[in-house]
Amino acid sequence: MKKSLVVQKFGGTSVGSIERIHTVAEHIIKAKNDGNQVVVVVSAMSGETNRLLGLAQQIDSVPTARELDVLLSAGEQVSMALVAMTLNKMGYSARSLTGAQASIVTDNHHNDATIKHIDTRTINELLEQDHIVIVAGFQGVNENGDITTLGRGGSDTSAVTLAGALQADECQIFTDVDGVYTCDPRVVPTAQKLDVVDFPSMEEMARKGAKVLHLPCVQYAWHHQVPLRVLSTFDVNDGSLIKGEVGTHPVCGIAIQRDMAIVCVHHDSLSSLTKQCQMLGIEIWNVIDEADWAGVVVKHDACAKLELVFSDKIRNTELVSLLTTVGLQAPHLVARSCELLAEKHIDVRYISTTNQSAMLTIAPQDVVEAANVLHSAFITSDEVIHEPVIQASLG
Amino acid sequence: MKKSLVVQKFGGTSVGSIERIHTVAEHIIKAKNDGNQVVVVVSAMSGETNRLLGLAQQIDSVPTARELDVLLSAGEQVSMALVAMTLNKMGYSARSLTGAQASIVTDNHHNDATIKHIDTRTINELLEQDHIVIVAGFQGVNENGDITTLGRGGSDTSAVTLAGALQADECQIFTDVDGVYTCDPRVVPTAQKLDVVDFPSMEEMARKGAKVLHLPCVQYAWHHQVPLRVLSTFDVNDGSLIKGEVGTHPVCGIAIQRDMAIVCVHHDSLSSLTKQCQMLGIEIWNVIDEADWAGVVVKHDACAKLELVFSDKIRNTELVSLLTTVGLQAPHLVARSCELLAEKHIDVRYISTTNQSAMLTIAPQDVVEAANVLHSAFITSDEVIHEPVIQASLG
Repeated sequence: MKKSLVVQKFGGTSVGSIERIHTVAEHIIKAKNDGNQVVVVVSAMSGETNRLLGLAQQIDSVPTARELDVLLSAGEQVSMALVAMTLNKMGYSARSLTGAQASIVTDNHHNDATIKHIDTRTINELLEQDHIVIVAGFQGVNENGDITTLGRGGSDTSAVTLAGALQADECQIFTDVDGVYTCDPRVVPTAQKLDVVDFPSMEEMARKGAKVLHLPCVQYAWHHQVPLRVLSTFDVNDGSLIKGEVGTHPVCGIAIQRDMAIVCVHHDSLSSLTKQCQMLGIEIWNVIDEADWAGVVVKHDACAKLELVFSDKIRNTELVSLLTTVGLQAPHLVARSCELLAEKHIDVRYISTTNQSAMLTIAPQDVVEAANVLHSAFITSDEVIHEPVIQASLG
Repeated sequence: MKKSLVVQKFGGTSVGSIERIHTVAEHIIKAKNDGNQVVVVVSAMSGETNRLLGLAQQIDSVPTARELDVLLSAGEQVSMALVAMTLNKMGYSARSLTGAQASIVTDNHHNDATIKHIDTRTINELLEQDHIVIVAGFQGVNENGDITTLGRGGSDTSAVTLAGALQADECQIFTDVDGVYTCDPRVVPTAQKLDVVDFPSMEEMARKGAKVLHLPCVQYAWHHQVPLRVLSTFDVNDGSLIKGEVGTHPVCGIAIQRDMAIVCVHHDSLSSLTKQCQMLGIEIWNVIDEADWAGVVVKHDACAKLELVFSDKIRNTELVSLLTTVGLQAPHLVARSCELLAEKHIDVRYISTTNQSAMLTIAPQDVVEAANVLHSAFITSDEVIHEPVIQASLG
């Protein structure tokens, strides 16, 4: 019988000290003792990537991309060796592999590479010999044999791509929170941990600002049907399992995205503004097309780039926050949301819906109160279940 | 016309900070601007190997050999990237390569591997594209693709082996001293830098305690006829060039080896003592065979190991120092050496000669005075040239 295979990913905080690496080893050993084959993906120890970047920036504010990848990839090489040593010391045979050794082949895009394919032969051989395999996250190798790194969220991507290539039964992302919450608990103290989330809802949550998982990681897992589990390194519980296509929650959660801006132009300039965004690689979150003006909603930190090439056309830029209710009922709750927020004198500037989400553009100072109002109505008190839903007429 | 090719090696102190790496880059650029192809071998930044070892030893006093190599090899990966970045920033195209990328293939002996062969194709391609190539010292890869390290003096070995494989015109070992001296200048203040040293003399100096170059490095260079140059990173001069078979100095230098011990046994036990040393991998520097007892001269730190398995046979252990005069005239100077030392009431315990050296065993407290006496007579005042040599009758 084929053993089940689990991929576990531990981030920088989880491997941040020898003591924490011991805790990580206990999670790994538990999975192994449960009868699984185990592949572990690790990030660099927290602080290490910044230390190495600091050295590079003493040399050059924009260091050579190829050499920066050589430098930064040393970070995971240290943590993977320490994790393997710890497991060996605890009586479990472990072997560490760099991205190159694990045959994680990427494109040539240094500092932001994309995984093209993984040749799993080495890992499978080691698993068949009953080793636990520790793989460096965040890194790969291009077809010339040069070291590459994957850019932001890279270790999650490494883990889920490995899980897909190995046809793993589950990909477990260990982090410093114990699962996916209905909303950011720092904003909404009554936010609840979700035991199970369907892929479409998780994708929409990640897309609209939930920080627990990077969007490409969720998308890859969904596309390859790899069940994803988010759980805490420092806590013992089952976390949140992300799988399947159909949600069980009428409203799954509320995603918050701060530090956004509406960039306003004359109506006639809208198409050239959106073209500029595309050329600069700036993501457009919403397009507003009013009678006398138009605008796009983008991340605030993209505004400077846009102003540099488009300043003569930009009328003004306004900071906003986005609040997105996610779930199959969400599009039907827009009118009720506006009503509830109006009671608190919170102005909803624009609304944009998909078939499973409703995104409200509001003023930054209103975001905490608005999130609590909607969470309380649609999640804590399950208002959606007890009231007939109202079809939203706003688009 | 084939360009000349220089291999330069910089140790941990030389790459110990961003500022020092800048100085290193200037040496590299000078060689490049002189019209050479340049391959550079770097160690880990000073302190880094100890930092990594410290992390490993928090986990396990004897960490897994394979994983220790993975861990330590990250050290050179950092320094090679920083050196390459610095050169790029200064307008010179540089590419760094790990031991694996440079195809430095070793045996399977983790932590103390031996280089089996180097496939120079990648390096040669990069050189032909006019890049400066920076290679991680101290590391290689075994035939399974596992990272290995070479053990003590490994970066020097990497450099000289690369120089041999690439048929380099010169292998330059940059260090914190500016060349090979006639004696350790901290012991003999009048010691002189040697501009040229022949391979046989340098090998004997290294074998008998001169620390400037590791013995296997000298032996490899000699065997492959790679001219070796020792020079300082922090000083501008031509250092010492080691080449050729024939010495130009009647006495080339005086090597000092401290912390040695005579392990004394009954005459009958001598052969089993030497066999024990062989089994334990303990090098025997001299064998003494007197009428009523016998002994071997070994490094003092090997005594504990020997006592563990042979304590019942060992009569006593005595700390000594060795002073070796190296050069073609050296064996003929034994009697004169004893005469000069006797004048200073320094007792020469044992004498051992080769065709180009004379090793005197003396008490540790006499080593400084004895070295100065012999250096003054045979090197500073060139006594050997002005006096007829006396054939030594001691063996």
